Amino acid sequence: MSTPTAARRTAARLVPVECEVAPLLDVAFSRWTTPVLWTLNEFGRQRFVELERRLGTITPKVLTQRLRQLERDGLVTRTYYPEMPPRVEYEISELGRTLGPLFALMATWAGRHMGEVEAARRAFDADS
Amino acid sequence: MSTPTAARRTAARLVPVECEVAPLLDVAFSRWTTPVLWTLNEFGRQRFVELERRLGTITPKVLTQRLRQLERDGLVTRTYYPEMPPRVEYEISELGRTLGPLFALMATWAGRHMGEVEAARRAFDADS
Repeated sequence: MSTPTAARRTAARLVPVECEVAPLLDVAFSRWTTPVLWTLNEFGRQRFVELERRLGTITPKVLTQRLRQLERDGLVTRTYYPEMPPRVEYEISELGRTLGPLFALMATWAGRHMGEVEAARRAFDADS
Repeated sequence: MSTPTAARRTAARLVPVECEVAPLLDVAFSRWTTPVLWTLNEFGRQRFVELERRLGTITPKVLTQRLRQLERDGLVTRTYYPEMPPRVEYEISELGRTLGPLFALMATWAGRHMGEVEAARRAFDADS
């Protein structure tokens, strides 16, 4: 018979499992990383001020941080033109482009199922 | 000729664009939401203590919060058995299962490209 004590004993034998998806979350799927990558993927090479405008509510500080992280992770390339005055442009890298099919699948999921998520929320809130 | 002032004028005409992927991030792709869903998807129906054990470092407080959020969003179902003592089990819902192909594609991407991300990081850090 299954009792909480038995369940606890079963659980004690379980070892933590590595979620294979988790490492990617920090790289490309967070509050601002995704919109930055998505915008560069959709609209091509852009200056800081263009990205900022398209992203709407991001602060310059957060945009600077995210771009630097994405550059470090090899997903975005930054090109500096030593003109007078200097010009800097950002572009999604070849590695970054490999995220395209994932973005497309996620957008399809959102289009198909976000209505169900919202309905579930309304039902849950009405119940509690 | 393109000057920063011209770029600023171009940017001023840009309107914010909706990132189609962003709404899904809060629902299924965050620090703990993903591992909880992924574990329920991989190992089936589980009690709290089993989930906790498999997730390794999650605190009971955060696990409780994530499960409640996922239940509210319709991705997880919670079944209460009024036994003595009571038993509660968690299971991924039919809606939650539709995330499966996304998880699979993300795991494939991570397996294929995380090495490139790490190499990019080493190169960036050596450079700066």
